[in-house]
Amino acid sequence: MIQEALEKAVSEGKSVTKSGKIATYIPELSKANTEHIGACIKTVSGETYSAGDWQQPFTMQSISKTISLTLALQTAGYDKVFSKVGLEPTGDSFNSIVKLETRNPNPLNPMINAGAIATASCIPGDDPFKLFLDLARKLCLNENISLNTEVFLSEKRAGMRNRSMAYWMKSENIIEGDPEETLDLYFKMCSVNVNAGDLASWGVILANDGVNPYTGTRLIESWIARLVKTFMMTCGMYDGSGEFAIKIGIPSKSGVGGGILSSVEARMGIGVFNPSLDPKGNSVGGMRILESLSKSLGLHYFGGHTRDNLKDPI
Amino acid sequence: MIQEALEKAVSEGKSVTKSGKIATYIPELSKANTEHIGACIKTVSGETYSAGDWQQPFTMQSISKTISLTLALQTAGYDKVFSKVGLEPTGDSFNSIVKLETRNPNPLNPMINAGAIATASCIPGDDPFKLFLDLARKLCLNENISLNTEVFLSEKRAGMRNRSMAYWMKSENIIEGDPEETLDLYFKMCSVNVNAGDLASWGVILANDGVNPYTGTRLIESWIARLVKTFMMTCGMYDGSGEFAIKIGIPSKSGVGGGILSSVEARMGIGVFNPSLDPKGNSVGGMRILESLSKSLGLHYFGGHTRDNLKDPI
Amino acid sequence: MIQEALEKAVSEGKSVTKSGKIATYIPELSKANTEHIGACIKTVSGETYSAGDWQQPFTMQSISKTISLTLALQTAGYDKVFSKVGLEPTGDSFNSIVKLETRNPNPLNPMINAGAIATASCIPGDDPFKLFLDLARKLCLNENISLNTEVFLSEKRAGMRNRSMAYWMKSENIIEGDPEETLDLYFKMCSVNVNAGDLASWGVILANDGVNPYTGTRLIESWIARLVKTFMMTCGMYDGSGEFAIKIGIPSKSGVGGGILSSVEARMGIGVFNPSLDPKGNSVGGMRILESLSKSLGLHYFGGHTRDNLKDPI
Amino acid sequence: MIQEALEKAVSEGKSVTKSGKIATYIPELSKANTEHIGACIKTVSGETYSAGDWQQPFTMQSISKTISLTLALQTAGYDKVFSKVGLEPTGDSFNSIVKLETRNPNPLNPMINAGAIATASCIPGDDPFKLFLDLARKLCLNENISLNTEVFLSEKRAGMRNRSMAYWMKSENIIEGDPEETLDLYFKMCSVNVNAGDLASWGVILANDGVNPYTGTRLIESWIARLVKTFMMTCGMYDGSGEFAIKIGIPSKSGVGGGILSSVEARMGIGVFNPSLDPKGNSVGGMRILESLSKSLGLHYFGGHTRDNLKDPI
Repeated sequence: MIQEALEKAVSEGKSVTKSGKIATYIPELSKANTEHIGACIKTVSGETYSAGDWQQPFTMQSISKTISLTLALQTAGYDKVFSKVGLEPTGDSFNSIVKLETRNPNPLNPMINAGAIATASCIPGDDPFKLFLDLARKLCLNENISLNTEVFLSEKRAGMRNRSMAYWMKSENIIEGDPEETLDLYFKMCSVNVNAGDLASWGVILANDGVNPYTGTRLIESWIARLVKTFMMTCGMYDGSGEFAIKIGIPSKSGVGGGILSSVEARMGIGVFNPSLDPKGNSVGGMRILESLSKSLGLHYFGGHTRDNLKDPI
Repeated sequence: MIQEALEKAVSEGKSVTKSGKIATYIPELSKANTEHIGACIKTVSGETYSAGDWQQPFTMQSISKTISLTLALQTAGYDKVFSKVGLEPTGDSFNSIVKLETRNPNPLNPMINAGAIATASCIPGDDPFKLFLDLARKLCLNENISLNTEVFLSEKRAGMRNRSMAYWMKSENIIEGDPEETLDLYFKMCSVNVNAGDLASWGVILANDGVNPYTGTRLIESWIARLVKTFMMTCGMYDGSGEFAIKIGIPSKSGVGGGILSSVEARMGIGVFNPSLDPKGNSVGGMRILESLSKSLGLHYFGGHTRDNLKDPI
Repeated sequence: MIQEALEKAVSEGKSVTKSGKIATYIPELSKANTEHIGACIKTVSGETYSAGDWQQPFTMQSISKTISLTLALQTAGYDKVFSKVGLEPTGDSFNSIVKLETRNPNPLNPMINAGAIATASCIPGDDPFKLFLDLARKLCLNENISLNTEVFLSEKRAGMRNRSMAYWMKSENIIEGDPEETLDLYFKMCSVNVNAGDLASWGVILANDGVNPYTGTRLIESWIARLVKTFMMTCGMYDGSGEFAIKIGIPSKSGVGGGILSSVEARMGIGVFNPSLDPKGNSVGGMRILESLSKSLGLHYFGGHTRDNLKDPI
Repeated sequence: MIQEALEKAVSEGKSVTKSGKIATYIPELSKANTEHIGACIKTVSGETYSAGDWQQPFTMQSISKTISLTLALQTAGYDKVFSKVGLEPTGDSFNSIVKLETRNPNPLNPMINAGAIATASCIPGDDPFKLFLDLARKLCLNENISLNTEVFLSEKRAGMRNRSMAYWMKSENIIEGDPEETLDLYFKMCSVNVNAGDLASWGVILANDGVNPYTGTRLIESWIARLVKTFMMTCGMYDGSGEFAIKIGIPSKSGVGGGILSSVEARMGIGVFNPSLDPKGNSVGGMRILESLSKSLGLHYFGGHTRDNLKDPI
């Protein structure tokens, strides 16, 4: 039944890919194929389901924010990270700088660009990207995850707005070290290649309270899993997070590479991929897949049952 | 065990009431006693637990936004309401007007004042307040719920910032009728007296998918319950919603009267009361009660188990 | 030579009236004829020149801000007025509310709507509008100046954004009395009928340091004339004030009725009229007339000589 | 009489230097002595007056914006410069970034930091700083003007907020070349040493329509002098420009090094210096000197006569 629902969802997703657009502000990303679409589900009981282009690699982009936050909490600790960044959703777009001046020099949360850059700057050590890559491989259950150097260099060249935010935060002492080093780390983390299967692995570990469901080994502490999932719920889909929570109701984090990481509490992880984006930067085909699954499998956190679409306007 | 946890929680709440302040911007509210504190739990299986001043009446204030949204969705429908108001959290304070000019004339969500005023303006009929009162009585399972006229008149006199927002929205055609009529309705809804027991009733109905757990009667449609709970989760605690979601993780809506309505999916409704407020307008004692219950009873939506506080920084 | 320059200027103004639009947000104003165009010059040595529809009546609109500020300074005094309103240009549009929340509850200057409403609220007495009308008649040297009741009622009905600002300022205690009374006064002052000749009179009195050039009688104190002219220079043309200062360089105040009041220090007053407006609310034909006169008569305050347009890009 | 007025003014200025603070955000600037105060006047008829520490060198800081704008207009032209930057005062502080996101990607005027950086980026050639230094020497009538390397390096290290703005404008294609090169140029121009006498020279050339009053040689075109003086009037004193225009009424440009450049149309140039700053970044002693001179010599552009302070509240 899950396989059937997944195939139906991917098929529905395919029907809407033309309504979005590829990310063009990072030149390398614009080479992706908007027709690529796929998804993978891994359950806490150990089953795997997949459909479409689930093995197609893409860069994590903002999805990396879930792993860099995990790493920062593990290494620098809760107090340090949240002395730099807040806990609140913003309602602004992912690359807005306004609130840093008008409201509070600290970025509102670690899921927007400014907040993720501030979070990255907390990670200690000589080679924080190696720590990130090691953690990403562990949490995605895939030793072959690696950097896409072309995308990294393209982001580094093009990322002027992120650079602007980093220097603003430097002027406010939120970033303590060299902003260019922090930006290099941030751009590298965004440029790590994964596929939908990798995201499903990370999602199911989150759903399973931080424990690898195949081995029973705890991979991250319970409170970090809880915190990451909460941020995914309140701020994971850019300034479309509220609507996504209402309509689909699955803690999720999207990236402009076209991926979405989802975690259904105590049930499953889901990875979806389609590089056709809506104006807020969320995957058009990916969101349709999740909407379909939420309804057919009853995945909304406040409605644990399948929905009668005839009577339900959302 | 629930009774024991509740009494411990109220006792912890008592210890922090001095750290907050009473609401003074509405003169009538400043008469409340910050030492009053109480809570009530009603479970989906039909049990009731209570402690402290749970029978003390207070005005709903912003908690009324959950019922007025329900009423607007029932009477005007989803499309009408969400042509006036958005679905996104804001990160701004409850009485901010800035985004109405800089971002979008529509208020970002129905849980902030501007959004609730716009939502109220959608409710049709000759006597929308009567509709509201009838619905509030039904959802709180208490036929005696009624208007606190002194508070209503005090809010009507003092509510200049709400009036400013209403006329701004009138200038943008978001409010269609007479702004003063809409404001009267809004102020009246805020000024309805309830107690913690009433909120526990409304909370358990939400937790039970809109169905009265004592009678099995459906009181509101499933999709409305789901939508209301989602807004409570993403925007229910003003600009402290994100931190509350991380630390406590229970869909909740607070009011500056000192009440908080909470709903634990498929398990229980909770009503808490303490009029000592933090700078964001949330009840200091009430939040402590909920934090205590979340930990002792395992109520966080992304951590369905009690927490080992020694290892957990949040 | 002045008459010739004036006729040429009005003729040039006629050629551009089609590029603007009539004000429509106040229904009564939309009845004006965008082809109407005229101007009048009165010199400190007592000569008068006129061309086109200079006798056509129109409502003062924002030009009234120069007289209401004068009245407030005369009656409430400098300290009182500038405890309510600032002295700075804004760069925002005339009806913006954002800075009242993000920067300072006091409006930035008395030439924007919020600031003029705050200024009006300072005028004491039982019938402040009578004081205004008396002063307007005195300063325009015309006893027949009177209220256009249709426009007043239309503004009162339509002025929701001004109403929003007034209530916001009430919530901040900037407006002390009843906001509706202040708004009535403000709308009435905006709705007083004048013609280009009346504005030329007021302009030449300002140019002559507050002294009636025909009689030698001082009508307003020197410091008030200086202050009003300075505001006209820095903030008189809405968010086009900077460009106007660069290109035309004459202290001026425009209104959405199509009038512009100008004062050339120690030389002349100018009144112009054409109800075709640019997107910032300034008269398209009127600005062209002033640009032509500035160049042909050498009226720019920082270039007291006629300009060789071939070599001069502005 | 001018000498007497000048000495009185400097003496008055001395009495208020303790009420301000030295600039500390650029470490090198914090070494200045807040007791240093001096002024110089040069008239269009060729006389020079001076008092106090008028020969004390200091860095131009924002005063360089008048010369870099002149250079950009000479080399890149009016159309190019004003495709990058606007003509309007802002009401925001000199280092605000908010409007670049909320209103218009182009900075509002060339006198705020973002606008001056954008203006600097327009200056063509292999060594634009050499062009600037040559022009500064010519306009200050001093061949010995040179770069203060310590201040330049200190600004380059400390200027994170300016760097943030530059990268933001790069992301919007307002800056076309390498932001770091533009910033180097900008920081160097700010770090050129001058004294009050040099500023008086530049001021009198502006007052004399761009012509050297000692030789009769035209140094800059008339329209550029007019434009620079207008910007000094509307935006020259940061977010204190409006109050300065009302109270003092002399086109002026201040810098956080403690200098102020002033130009009294057709009469004189004034240079003042005192490194004690008010919260907006304007020299406390310098403004008092100018206020004293404005009153005693009748220098306000809209009140060409000395003032009777007893009757005049400003």
